[in-house]
Amino acid sequence: MAPLEFWYEFASTYSYPAAMEVEDRARQFGLEIEWRPFLLGPLFFEQSGWSDSPFNIYPAKGKYMWRDMERICDQAGLAFSRPAVFPQNGLLAARTALVGEEEGWIAPFTRAVYSANFSKGQDISEPSIIASLLGDVGADETAVLERAKSPEIKERLKHQTQAAMDKGLFGAPSFFVDGELFWGHDRMDAAIDWAKRH
Amino acid sequence: MAPLEFWYEFASTYSYPAAMEVEDRARQFGLEIEWRPFLLGPLFFEQSGWSDSPFNIYPAKGKYMWRDMERICDQAGLAFSRPAVFPQNGLLAARTALVGEEEGWIAPFTRAVYSANFSKGQDISEPSIIASLLGDVGADETAVLERAKSPEIKERLKHQTQAAMDKGLFGAPSFFVDGELFWGHDRMDAAIDWAKRH
Repeated sequence: MAPLEFWYEFASTYSYPAAMEVEDRARQFGLEIEWRPFLLGPLFFEQSGWSDSPFNIYPAKGKYMWRDMERICDQAGLAFSRPAVFPQNGLLAARTALVGEEEGWIAPFTRAVYSANFSKGQDISEPSIIASLLGDVGADETAVLERAKSPEIKERLKHQTQAAMDKGLFGAPSFFVDGELFWGHDRMDAAIDWAKRH
Repeated sequence: MAPLEFWYEFASTYSYPAAMEVEDRARQFGLEIEWRPFLLGPLFFEQSGWSDSPFNIYPAKGKYMWRDMERICDQAGLAFSRPAVFPQNGLLAARTALVGEEEGWIAPFTRAVYSANFSKGQDISEPSIIASLLGDVGADETAVLERAKSPEIKERLKHQTQAAMDKGLFGAPSFFVDGELFWGHDRMDAAIDWAKRH
């Protein structure tokens, strides 16, 4: 079976339920997940000229999204609280997640960041918050935050963001499997189904 | 149970599978459907300044949508052929559908227009095509096309388009049930589920 690439941006609302659910869902079918944090801002700017979330630029869409998130999280049994700042700056979290990929804790760290952002009202751009989440997943806070600032990690995030663009992504969450792109939390099952069949 | 309002634009790609499936799906649960054709163009322009489909304005999104439509229609067993012109002008079809609401054939006529647009490659802005579809649903072609041009029908479509905006719609298809908005073909089941529970 093809692996399931899960592409996500830490500021992205719909990426929250996807991040919380994807591992359990994929495990049912023995699928391997590749966790792919990236930055959506550069894609939005290059593809659409947006310097802000489209949910802020287009208020009707934004109003709908917040209500839709409430319904989705309610249905999924996920705590949800609209963040005071949206979108948050996910740069530090994304770099840190890449360190987690090297060290094997990217999945629980990713979930911890989304909970911080969309359930606990925490500022995920704040190093002290990220340090606390690192503690929760058993990582070495000081060493990891140092590594997250290294040129290698910065370069890898740039590279991964460019790779997202090259694969045709334009939003998050996205799933990429066997050459096929699926966009949105609501396409997670279709992506998993595709992975099972290819 | 609350009725299910089905809001659609004849040029809209994702409205095609929704229009083909909604009646069968709703019937399983004894739900009443209210068919609500409207024009998406005025909403796009007023809310976003768009004078064209976002799938044309944003190529990455458009490329994805066409592939996604192929997969969705394949899965649903619906014939699909990308129209030579996109978006088509759905004004005449929408006005005609409102006559169908008066006369009781809006559902089969709506499906016939979507098939013409997204499976048969026909020009749905062409009165001779609409006349032929009217013949297929057993309506009086000449009388209906005359009525479709009447001030009452023109006014009703304007009114319905304004009502869509007032309800917070920003895309098609949309479902409105018991004060809740659901956007997208992929929210049809959530909308039906909401209707069942309210």
